[in-house]
Amino acid sequence: MRDVYAIGVGITSFSRLDYPLTEIACYPALMAMKDCGIHKIDHVYVANMGASRLNRQTGLASAVVDSLSLTPAGAEAIENGPASGASAIKQGFMAVASGMNDVVMVIGAERMREVNNLDATDFVATLSHPLAEYIYGVTLPALAGMFTRLYMEKYGVTERHLAMVAVKNHANALLNPFAHLRQPITLAGILDSPEAMTNNPYVAEPLRFFDCCPVSDGGACIILACADVAKKLKKPLVRLAGVGQATDTLAVHERVSPTDLTAVKLSSQKAFRMAGREPSDVSVAELHDAFTILEIVESEEVGFFEKGAGHLALERGETQIGGRLPINTSGGLKAKGHPVGATGVGQAHEIVLQLRGEAGKRQVKNARVGFTCNFGGFGNNVVSLVFVRE
Amino acid sequence: MRDVYAIGVGITSFSRLDYPLTEIACYPALMAMKDCGIHKIDHVYVANMGASRLNRQTGLASAVVDSLSLTPAGAEAIENGPASGASAIKQGFMAVASGMNDVVMVIGAERMREVNNLDATDFVATLSHPLAEYIYGVTLPALAGMFTRLYMEKYGVTERHLAMVAVKNHANALLNPFAHLRQPITLAGILDSPEAMTNNPYVAEPLRFFDCCPVSDGGACIILACADVAKKLKKPLVRLAGVGQATDTLAVHERVSPTDLTAVKLSSQKAFRMAGREPSDVSVAELHDAFTILEIVESEEVGFFEKGAGHLALERGETQIGGRLPINTSGGLKAKGHPVGATGVGQAHEIVLQLRGEAGKRQVKNARVGFTCNFGGFGNNVVSLVFVRE
Repeated sequence: MRDVYAIGVGITSFSRLDYPLTEIACYPALMAMKDCGIHKIDHVYVANMGASRLNRQTGLASAVVDSLSLTPAGAEAIENGPASGASAIKQGFMAVASGMNDVVMVIGAERMREVNNLDATDFVATLSHPLAEYIYGVTLPALAGMFTRLYMEKYGVTERHLAMVAVKNHANALLNPFAHLRQPITLAGILDSPEAMTNNPYVAEPLRFFDCCPVSDGGACIILACADVAKKLKKPLVRLAGVGQATDTLAVHERVSPTDLTAVKLSSQKAFRMAGREPSDVSVAELHDAFTILEIVESEEVGFFEKGAGHLALERGETQIGGRLPINTSGGLKAKGHPVGATGVGQAHEIVLQLRGEAGKRQVKNARVGFTCNFGGFGNNVVSLVFVRE
Repeated sequence: MRDVYAIGVGITSFSRLDYPLTEIACYPALMAMKDCGIHKIDHVYVANMGASRLNRQTGLASAVVDSLSLTPAGAEAIENGPASGASAIKQGFMAVASGMNDVVMVIGAERMREVNNLDATDFVATLSHPLAEYIYGVTLPALAGMFTRLYMEKYGVTERHLAMVAVKNHANALLNPFAHLRQPITLAGILDSPEAMTNNPYVAEPLRFFDCCPVSDGGACIILACADVAKKLKKPLVRLAGVGQATDTLAVHERVSPTDLTAVKLSSQKAFRMAGREPSDVSVAELHDAFTILEIVESEEVGFFEKGAGHLALERGETQIGGRLPINTSGGLKAKGHPVGATGVGQAHEIVLQLRGEAGKRQVKNARVGFTCNFGGFGNNVVSLVFVRE
């Protein structure tokens, strides 16, 4: 297989965007082409989860390739729930690695503002088991709430640890001009004050409002290319060195241990193996913190910390910017936002900036190896990526 | 790139199916595993267009890989409108060709019975240009009707030619136990009799009822593998030798010539070039006859006949079983049915059977090279495949 490089990136604000889905997809693509100076694209992948239902649009990839005047380049949409973005990056990786294409554009885009928060919650719940979960009214916050309670009982995680994830990621988002929730929060304000129960009510106990990511619109783009193309450019070289994916049972209750996220563990192991790197080599990571508990658990399953020790590393400040392993420097899904189909591409965007030294005020010093974990379903289909600065 | 073989196939009836979408996807997968005797699958692609809107299900690939007990194998859904099936086969081809995977399962599945015909027409119309076509109420039959009228005026095609495609494909479907419309029709009955205007009314003039494919449920599966795996099996070897894709403007009115299907031409040229074959080498072809006119025009753009001569070859019986180049031996979308996401995989299923000599009463003698054209949007994203019996 050929080496694959991330040569260009672009992103929209993750927020409420007042333009059509096709444009949400095209804007970061234009930024990414400008970023690398390459305008000849062999193929386009578009990661998206909800266009058919939320936007009454199908064939989104065909619309995007036309709007960008890239016809007759081929194009497809990739759907893997909230992990659609990293799944699409994986397709782009294979297209370049196989020799089918030299330059592949991977876009993630979602426009969720069509629906209110209740409908958005129902829409996202359609990724659960249709007959064993969805028809009983289970939502993602509900699944995450039950998961969190079990985790607390087993490993000593507290509501304070959850809130610490939110405070950290909101602080990071303040340094990211593209983040959705650029709002400073404090433990005092969301947990300890008399107003906390009003400011930060329970959504699905023990998860509160500030433990849940927002519903966002947004788009992101990454352009992948073979070495011949990448090595002619002036930007620092970032190689997509490892790609791993694993699935788990669709229904959470069918898992041997409901507090294990086995697909996170397996997919990251595969990605590290392909990259020839270890978790301890990672300088900066974007984890899928749709709920605060997930950042803690993923940081363990990926191998950054021992099982049950993620919240202790968090307490010690190891995952802050300036700590041993900064996690979610972008603000994460929690504060940067979660336009579902775009999220995985947005994670890769942050890592490329970090490895190039272009992350501005949130820059991690000497970042050489970056990692992303994009989590589909409630952990039933996970894609992990390892990026290396060459 | 490594060689890629089609080692196993399976299919459901294309009809009205009374079981959930996940099962529509899994049934042909089980058939395909039984067909080749291989149960270790590295990756699963699921082609689907409408699950989110029609079935309130997302993350379909995760549901399928779990239901088939194939976890932790990776899985994604691929969407390219009605060409989703061949797009997914292309992903599977790359996964094996690149060396990422040795055995990849490609499933196409759609369950459209959730909606009535009016809603199905609206759903399919969402693949047109959102701002230049869809919002004005353009439907696919409307686009096809205007296209047909232009084609008639320019090339001398008549309603009788259109009806001849329908009669041929219904006759083929009678030989296919999995076809949706197993109903013999005659030119007398649908065109010449006094009852024709009642039996076969105009849908979008000059297209009549029998010029349009039905709305079907259905699933199909093809398993792809590398040479090491394929050459140990007992079935005749069928190689996926050529894969081509091309896009065109999303809005039909933006094309230089609205009667040219340029993406069909370009995608087939790419596929033939990769396969080292010519259109004249083809023994049997499945073309995307969602409307009868499309079979005629695609047979020209692919290079089987001169531009404007497709209807004359049809008249001479060249595209019947027993003719020089049988087209749509399965019954085609017209009579076999059109469960949109499954269609491209269903086309490949027919070609594999034909090249193996397993097509029963509709077998084309000495079939050595097979071709499929899967047409996304109204010709805006087309995937062509060339299969070769080794």
